Amino acid sequence: MDYRRIKGEEDSMSASQDDIESFQEKHNPNSDAHLPRSVPSLGKRSDWRLKSFVTLALTILTSSQAILIVWSKRAGKYDYSVTTANFSVEALKCAFSLAALVRIWKKDGVTEDNKLSMSFDEVNVYPIPAALYLIKNLLQYYIFAYVDAPAYQILKNLNIISTGVLYRIILKKKLSEIQWAAFILLCAGCTTAQLNPSSDHVLQTPFPGWMMAIVMALLSGFAGVYTEAIIKKHPSRNINVQNFWLYVFGMIFNLIAICVQDYDAVMNNGIAVSMVMKYADNIVKVYSTSVAMLLTAVVSVFLFSFHLSLAFFLGSTIVSVSIYLHSIGKPPR
Amino acid sequence: MDYRRIKGEEDSMSASQDDIESFQEKHNPNSDAHLPRSVPSLGKRSDWRLKSFVTLALTILTSSQAILIVWSKRAGKYDYSVTTANFSVEALKCAFSLAALVRIWKKDGVTEDNKLSMSFDEVNVYPIPAALYLIKNLLQYYIFAYVDAPAYQILKNLNIISTGVLYRIILKKKLSEIQWAAFILLCAGCTTAQLNPSSDHVLQTPFPGWMMAIVMALLSGFAGVYTEAIIKKHPSRNINVQNFWLYVFGMIFNLIAICVQDYDAVMNNGIAVSMVMKYADNIVKVYSTSVAMLLTAVVSVFLFSFHLSLAFFLGSTIVSVSIYLHSIGKPPR
Repeated sequence: MDYRRIKGEEDSMSASQDDIESFQEKHNPNSDAHLPRSVPSLGKRSDWRLKSFVTLALTILTSSQAILIVWSKRAGKYDYSVTTANFSVEALKCAFSLAALVRIWKKDGVTEDNKLSMSFDEVNVYPIPAALYLIKNLLQYYIFAYVDAPAYQILKNLNIISTGVLYRIILKKKLSEIQWAAFILLCAGCTTAQLNPSSDHVLQTPFPGWMMAIVMALLSGFAGVYTEAIIKKHPSRNINVQNFWLYVFGMIFNLIAICVQDYDAVMNNGIAVSMVMKYADNIVKVYSTSVAMLLTAVVSVFLFSFHLSLAFFLGSTIVSVSIYLHSIGKPPR
Repeated sequence: MDYRRIKGEEDSMSASQDDIESFQEKHNPNSDAHLPRSVPSLGKRSDWRLKSFVTLALTILTSSQAILIVWSKRAGKYDYSVTTANFSVEALKCAFSLAALVRIWKKDGVTEDNKLSMSFDEVNVYPIPAALYLIKNLLQYYIFAYVDAPAYQILKNLNIISTGVLYRIILKKKLSEIQWAAFILLCAGCTTAQLNPSSDHVLQTPFPGWMMAIVMALLSGFAGVYTEAIIKKHPSRNINVQNFWLYVFGMIFNLIAICVQDYDAVMNNGIAVSMVMKYADNIVKVYSTSVAMLLTAVVSVFLFSFHLSLAFFLGSTIVSVSIYLHSIGKPPR
């Protein structure tokens, strides 16, 4: 949102009237408790810095998490249950949010914005992203009847497109024509970077497999966009309170998942992701995780002597051009 | 050049002063003998039509030539020498140009613009493109000491970048930032479309191989850009006269090649290429031949039951986005 606002200020004609109203309503700059109040004149600049910082943090966290997972699998010394590990991580993040809140309460006292209790009207939307991820992850077991794991990795790139489309429809934020082109390129570039001699299997995916892949991409995109909507609906609300509730429901749905089957993380990289959602948006998240994927591969070359393919170089080039185009593409008039 | 002019008229600030002067000098619209004089008010529209027509013609010709070559190889009934075939094609095209000229002479009489003889100052540049192609094609025999044929096909995509760079440097025409991005994407997209399990070989190309590939790309790009410069330097000169001289030198250099070794075509798709050079430019030629490559693959699926890879679909998507970006990207202010 801040990102959009910076763009909007550069070119005052670039946002439609109802766009401007909707973001003024959601985003009164003076109510934003997270910017240092001592430097109000630097507001715009510190917005930009904050945005860059959370984007960088998410990129590094995502790639280091991926590298740690590969490392722990390769080392093979610790045999742990992925499901239990995910549940523990959610619980840990929940505890961190609570600890951060206690510090804030001691410093500023309990205010309307940092108190833990919420009205039912506000809290009742918090389970929705976790529930969507649960449904998506349960579908995952059925899709493997139609596609194998490498093909599934390729199909997961449909998430990029679904996130863009839902971002436009649900959050009513606009992307310029160039930014749409950049988004298609991001999807094609990420897929290209993952190509390997067995990738062509994916073209033999039967119709139900395609349908399920599209539904899963929509669920995942919807969960991401919905999280952004929840977090940005109350911009003055302390992010630790928002995270606390997201993790509580993440834990609950992870518990359900443990009862049902072995299960992926409900909320990946929680804190960094919600920071991006609060100070940037789903689009930044998509770019951030794409770059993290490329970064992971490059680091893996040095750490695990992985092999980089020509397809990887091409994909990285395409993703880089996409990032460049996204940054120069102004929102439509 | 016409293409550039149309763009320039859309946005009068988009061309620098010396750009405008240089194309006014080269391109007096009233002296253009190839547009129907009876409809002067439709000049701009028919320019656009002519440009679209030659682009489409080049695309179809290039792909049908490629398909015919595959067909004749597959049928395997006719055993012909590629070198002799090329020489004959050059001779045939030379004859066609001459026949077209004779018709024009009968109709309009011999004028300054359609007479066959040229001053030495004008004709002495005509051998240069053919000579450059000859050097490039001779280098081809040496590069195979470092790379195999599939890797060479991949490296040939460097032509796209070299054409763009030389187009900018030699013809001093500007591409916008978006158009540069589109050009990088075109190169990446074409390469992606050609990926196959053995493509990774290309990354093992030794340093002299890379150097030669770059030199060959520069020679090929230089030949293309030089041909455009020759043809556009005298826009009022009848294109058949220009073609005649290009083919004469094409034949001579093909003869040299026959004496030296088995040899590729000096000038591919001669007439359509020079039409594009006269009414559009090298950039249009590059896009046209790239689309022809994709079209050839699609047609081959139906004709020869070729197999389309996932990489092909990704590459086609990237090339399509590149074309779109090129068309919306305005030249820089």
